[in-house]
Amino acid sequence: MEQNLIFTNDVAGAIERLENSGNHNMTVWIADTNTARLITPAPPRLITIPDGDDNKTLDTVTRVWDGMERLGATRHSLVVNLGGGMVTDLGGFAAATFKRGVRFINVPTTLLGAVDAAVGGKTGFNYNGLKNEVGAFAPASDVIISTCFFDTLPVEEMKSGFAEVLKHAMLSDRDEFLRLLDHDFSRPIDHDDMLERLRRSVQIKVDIVARDPNEQGERKALNLGHTVGHAFESLAMQRGKPVPHGFAIAWGLVTEAVLSHIRLQFPSEDVHRLGNFVRDNYRGFPFTCDDYDELLALMRHDKKSRDGEVTCSLLADIGDYRIDQTLTDDDVTAALDILRDLLGV
Amino acid sequence: MEQNLIFTNDVAGAIERLENSGNHNMTVWIADTNTARLITPAPPRLITIPDGDDNKTLDTVTRVWDGMERLGATRHSLVVNLGGGMVTDLGGFAAATFKRGVRFINVPTTLLGAVDAAVGGKTGFNYNGLKNEVGAFAPASDVIISTCFFDTLPVEEMKSGFAEVLKHAMLSDRDEFLRLLDHDFSRPIDHDDMLERLRRSVQIKVDIVARDPNEQGERKALNLGHTVGHAFESLAMQRGKPVPHGFAIAWGLVTEAVLSHIRLQFPSEDVHRLGNFVRDNYRGFPFTCDDYDELLALMRHDKKSRDGEVTCSLLADIGDYRIDQTLTDDDVTAALDILRDLLGV
Repeated sequence: MEQNLIFTNDVAGAIERLENSGNHNMTVWIADTNTARLITPAPPRLITIPDGDDNKTLDTVTRVWDGMERLGATRHSLVVNLGGGMVTDLGGFAAATFKRGVRFINVPTTLLGAVDAAVGGKTGFNYNGLKNEVGAFAPASDVIISTCFFDTLPVEEMKSGFAEVLKHAMLSDRDEFLRLLDHDFSRPIDHDDMLERLRRSVQIKVDIVARDPNEQGERKALNLGHTVGHAFESLAMQRGKPVPHGFAIAWGLVTEAVLSHIRLQFPSEDVHRLGNFVRDNYRGFPFTCDDYDELLALMRHDKKSRDGEVTCSLLADIGDYRIDQTLTDDDVTAALDILRDLLGV
Repeated sequence: MEQNLIFTNDVAGAIERLENSGNHNMTVWIADTNTARLITPAPPRLITIPDGDDNKTLDTVTRVWDGMERLGATRHSLVVNLGGGMVTDLGGFAAATFKRGVRFINVPTTLLGAVDAAVGGKTGFNYNGLKNEVGAFAPASDVIISTCFFDTLPVEEMKSGFAEVLKHAMLSDRDEFLRLLDHDFSRPIDHDDMLERLRRSVQIKVDIVARDPNEQGERKALNLGHTVGHAFESLAMQRGKPVPHGFAIAWGLVTEAVLSHIRLQFPSEDVHRLGNFVRDNYRGFPFTCDDYDELLALMRHDKKSRDGEVTCSLLADIGDYRIDQTLTDDDVTAALDILRDLLGV
């Protein structure tokens, strides 16, 4: 899987160069109701979709296909997905399947999108109430990564994306991990520094994906924090009090760091460093031991689990990951107890 | 793109070996209302879809996704598509996108399916009245090619598939081309000989696809006969008198052989040999010069055409193909005149 990654704060110039780099007959933009406003002047061909994960549906996919049809898009057109993960996932799927595939580029507008959804080729939408239940492995030909959209992002959005940045550092680089734990969300964004953090973070993901594009093995390392994190996210949804994705991942990273300590002697000082940072920046998820059974059931239902066992990726050390780790219920229960201590919930 | 091709008339044994070759948690069969009856005893997990190209729709795709959901299919399941091109195209798309991709195998039950749709990784469905408008390049992991379903096929179905067999020979092998022109549809099927013809025919397609899986270049050669053939097929549809796909392709092959002679000095004796065979076995398509404008418009609308010009693949000789040939309206008009002479319509 080849993806051209462009790190720049001159987004308009980068897009123009890509438009001119192929023999395209037109450019079709896909944006949501929020990100459509970021394009000035408005492009001649724009498909605007309703924003938010609730609209990441087949119905919205058909709106994109219909729009591409109406605009006369062909296999020789170029699609630009401008938005967060919902736009790049859904727009990517629509482009990858329209006439069996039109070239598309991703321009993530959120930190989470830049370090996670926009890169690596996973596309899709929610179906029958299940997240990303239908989709394809279909890489954007180019991804333009920029910090220029971040100044207007709510701090909660920045924190949400930062959890994935932390995860990437945990998978590869102790120095970067420690540097990130010094981050202060109350200060204005230093764009040069943030672009450098993005460059490193995305490179870690790209290196892993390149070795295993279809998630047969090593790529599962990128699920660090997600088996437990998704369970928190789903539980919050069930309660009617959804939490930002990255917050659930931050809590999941701490829990899986604890599990890594229990199963693989991951250093306890790193568990505490991470726990403190997450407690200070991501609050805690309010749950009690009455929720353990439901959380375990959700983890067993995870797309990567099989045969009813909880399976996840763990760390023996920062940078030393182990995929396909099977957990006992006792392991998970013990880790959830410790998590509540660490986060003070 | 790797596809394991199995030529055998022990289909049940081949499927069983594939089921045992991976660590699958279940096998889900997809068949249409006709081909479902071919499986005895009925498999425990079967999704039956309505048959026919009219049902090659998004609605049917969602029925398959829902069925897979209901049966508890996971990424570790195996899907078996049993049927003609409609089942392998649509079932392949549904499997390739369910949870971002489940392993699937194709078991084509028609000659056309065996030499065309089931092999090569094109999947999809019709959308907004356009054939295969949405889809993906997603290869079946294995294709089981057999003649054992052919004895009960109507002779029109056999002829329809045979047009693609002819096309493959025209792209590569004069001896095979001449041998095929001796075929007599009135005789019972010689299974050993037919399996050998299939083996050669499929190999030609596989060799071309392997060099260009995503149809960026050389694979376009496989569209020989299709630019014109699709136009006949669409015109027949507009008239409310649909024709078998392969009949339209047979007429398209003759027309494009004529165009090949006009543009690239393709031997006129081969044009006549082919024309005679098609006239004797495929009737003629009843059209007059009043239909030329509509036929030209349909050719310009072809998925592979661009900038409003008719583009197709032609032959300088049997086995010597040239892609991306742009035609003038005069070329096409002249060829249609000659076609009507050759077929006596």
